[in-house]
Amino acid sequence: MPKNYLLTPGPTPLPPQVCEAMARPIIHHRTPQFQNILKEASDGLRYVFQTKGDVFILASSGTGAMEAAVVNLLSKGDTAVCIEGGKFGERWTELCRGYEINTEVVKVEWGKAVDTSVIKETLKNNPKIKVVFATLCETSTGVTNDIKALGEVVKETKAVLVVDAISGLGAIDLKTDGWSCDVVVSGSQKGLMLPPGLGFISVSAKAWKLIEESKSPRYYFDLKKAKKAADKTDTPFTPAINLIIGLCEALKIIKGVGLENVFARHKKMADATRAAAGALGLELFAPTASSDVVTAIRAPEGIDGEKLVKTMRDTYGVTIAGGQAELKGKVFRIAHMGYIEEFDIILGISCLEKVLHQMGYKFTLGTGIKAAEEVFLK
Amino acid sequence: MPKNYLLTPGPTPLPPQVCEAMARPIIHHRTPQFQNILKEASDGLRYVFQTKGDVFILASSGTGAMEAAVVNLLSKGDTAVCIEGGKFGERWTELCRGYEINTEVVKVEWGKAVDTSVIKETLKNNPKIKVVFATLCETSTGVTNDIKALGEVVKETKAVLVVDAISGLGAIDLKTDGWSCDVVVSGSQKGLMLPPGLGFISVSAKAWKLIEESKSPRYYFDLKKAKKAADKTDTPFTPAINLIIGLCEALKIIKGVGLENVFARHKKMADATRAAAGALGLELFAPTASSDVVTAIRAPEGIDGEKLVKTMRDTYGVTIAGGQAELKGKVFRIAHMGYIEEFDIILGISCLEKVLHQMGYKFTLGTGIKAAEEVFLK
Repeated sequence: MPKNYLLTPGPTPLPPQVCEAMARPIIHHRTPQFQNILKEASDGLRYVFQTKGDVFILASSGTGAMEAAVVNLLSKGDTAVCIEGGKFGERWTELCRGYEINTEVVKVEWGKAVDTSVIKETLKNNPKIKVVFATLCETSTGVTNDIKALGEVVKETKAVLVVDAISGLGAIDLKTDGWSCDVVVSGSQKGLMLPPGLGFISVSAKAWKLIEESKSPRYYFDLKKAKKAADKTDTPFTPAINLIIGLCEALKIIKGVGLENVFARHKKMADATRAAAGALGLELFAPTASSDVVTAIRAPEGIDGEKLVKTMRDTYGVTIAGGQAELKGKVFRIAHMGYIEEFDIILGISCLEKVLHQMGYKFTLGTGIKAAEEVFLK
Repeated sequence: MPKNYLLTPGPTPLPPQVCEAMARPIIHHRTPQFQNILKEASDGLRYVFQTKGDVFILASSGTGAMEAAVVNLLSKGDTAVCIEGGKFGERWTELCRGYEINTEVVKVEWGKAVDTSVIKETLKNNPKIKVVFATLCETSTGVTNDIKALGEVVKETKAVLVVDAISGLGAIDLKTDGWSCDVVVSGSQKGLMLPPGLGFISVSAKAWKLIEESKSPRYYFDLKKAKKAADKTDTPFTPAINLIIGLCEALKIIKGVGLENVFARHKKMADATRAAAGALGLELFAPTASSDVVTAIRAPEGIDGEKLVKTMRDTYGVTIAGGQAELKGKVFRIAHMGYIEEFDIILGISCLEKVLHQMGYKFTLGTGIKAAEEVFLK
C-alpha cells in the first residue's frame, strides 16, 4: 500500500498532538475534570468564531449543525432565502424543504460568488423572509463568498444571516460578530484539524429571538436545551468526549499561531496552488472568487478528471478530491486547509505533474513546482 | 491528581488497541480504503446486534439514534407506547412529544422491570398503537427488562418494538432477530468500549414498512438516506471516521472472545458486585431485576450518596455514578460493562469500603472484597 498523503477538503490531516490527545484514556463527562475541558473548548471556539456570543458543540457532523440552524430558527410555512452556488448551498434548500420551509432559491452560477445586490433586492421584495442561508466556502466549486458584504445587507432587515462555515472556519477570515453573522455553523474535520464528528453552531441575540418563536419539532438539536446545559458548563446529551479533548489541542495550536497568521498561511498555500495550476496551463474553475482553502481546477481537454484523482490516490497515495455532481470528471480539487503546510502542497503538485504526464498531457515537468516555490519564497 | 479509574455506565474504559486505532493518521471517507472499514464495521455490528438485517452507523450520541427511531417510524398524531421505568424510558416520551406523537405512557416503578402483561393489555385495548418503545437496561435504576418476553407480545400485533439498547448491547444478551426487536438503537460508549460519538440503529422488514409511511420531517437522521448510501457502502453525510476505525478494533475484540463469553463475564462481574454489596450490608435498588451491566445500590441510612460518589472520584480517582433525578443522593451505581474486568471491580469495591469507612458506616473492612473474590473464584 502506498504511503498516504491527504490533500482533501475534509477530513484534513491531524496534528500529532491532536491524535495523541484523542487516544488518552477516556474520562467521564459529568465531572469537574471534563467541565474544565468543555470550558476551554468553548472559549477557544469563541476565539476562532470571533464572537463573544454563544457557541455550542454538537455530537454530529456539520450537516447536523446545519439542521440545528434550520429547525431552531424556522417553523413550517416560514420563508427563507437559500443561496445555491454548489452542492453545499443546495443542502440548505433540501434541509428547508424537509421541514416545509418556503424557500426563495437564489441560484448562483457554479464557480461564481453570490452577487450581494441580488440578495438585497430579494429581501426588499419579500419582507416575510426570516433567514438568509449562505455558504462561506462552497467546497464543491472552490468559491469563497463575500460574507462581510452579505452581513451588511442582512443586518438592515429583520432577517437573520446563517453561514455554513464548515469549510473555512479557522482557515480564512470570518468575523461572526464583526460581520453580523447571526448563526455560523461549522464542523471539526476542516480548518479545525480534527476527525469528523463534531458540529459547532454560534447564535447571536437576534437569532435567539427567532429561536424563541420557532415551532419546528426538535429534540437532539434543540439549542434551548444546549443553552440551558451550557449555562452549567454541561451538554444536554453525552458529548463526543475524546473529540472535544482533541479540539482543545487543536485550538491551542491555532491560538498559539494566531488567527491572522493562520489565515496568511492558508492564503499563501492557495496562491502557490493557483500559480502552479497556471504554470501548468491549467484553468481554475473559479478564477474570480477562488477560495483560500480549496482550489478547483478544470481537467484539461482529453484528461479524465476522475481517472486523474483515482490514479493519484490508488497508485501514489496522494488523495485530492474529484468533482461532485455535475462537475464529476470535469474538475479536481486540491485542498490547502488545516494541518497542511507548504511542502504538502509541493508533494501534491509533484504527484499531479507525474500523473498528468503519464496521462499524456503536454507540459514541461517541474514548471508547476517552480511556480509554487516562487510563491513560497516571497 | 489521583490516578483515574472508570467504573461508570458510559463512557466505559477503552481498550488500548481502540485508543491506538483512533489515533492513527486520518484517511478520507470516500475511498475504497474506508469502504472496507465501513463494511467490516457493519458486519461486526450485525454480529453484536445478532441480526441479519440493516444496521446503520450515525455520527451522533445514542439520543440521536433514539430520535432517528422516532422520526423515521412515526408521524404527528400517531400513537406509541412508552415504557417509563427511569430517566431513559422518559426520554422516549419526551422525544415522542417533541414530534407530537400521542403517547400511552406505561409507568413502571423505578427499580422494577416492566410487566409484559400490561403491554399486552395496552396493545389489545388500542389497535392504533404503531410502536412500543422499551429500554433494555434502564441505566438510571440498574434494571434489565425482559425484551424477549416483550418481543413475543409485540410481534403478534401490528406494532413494532423499538428497544433502547444503548446500555447493554454487546454486554448482555439481546437477540435482535431472535426476539423480534424491530428497531434496536445503541451508542458507542458502553458495551462497545468506544468513546461517545456514534449512534447505531437496526431496522427490521416490519419497521421499514412504517418508515415508508412516516411523514415526520427529517434530514440528518433520515434512514432512507442512510439505506441508500449503505447500499453503496457509503454514508449520506461525513461519518465519524476515526471512531468507526476504533469500532472495528472493538468489534474484533468482541468477536475474538465470542458474544457468549462476553455475556458470561459481565454476569460474573455483576454477581460479584451484588455479592459485595450484600456482604457490606447494603441494599440493591433493583433486587428483582438487577442488571448485569450496572448495579444500583441504595446509600445506607446516614450516608449521603452524592458525597460518597464525589469522595471516591475527587479524592481517590475512582469514578462511579451517582443517582439521577429523584434518586440523587439516594443511590450510587457501579458499572461493570465494556472494558472492565474482575480486578477493576475489586478496586472499585475496595475504594467503596474505604470511603464508607471514612464516612462512619459500620462494617468489617474487607468483607465486600471477600464476597467478590469468592464469586470470581467460582
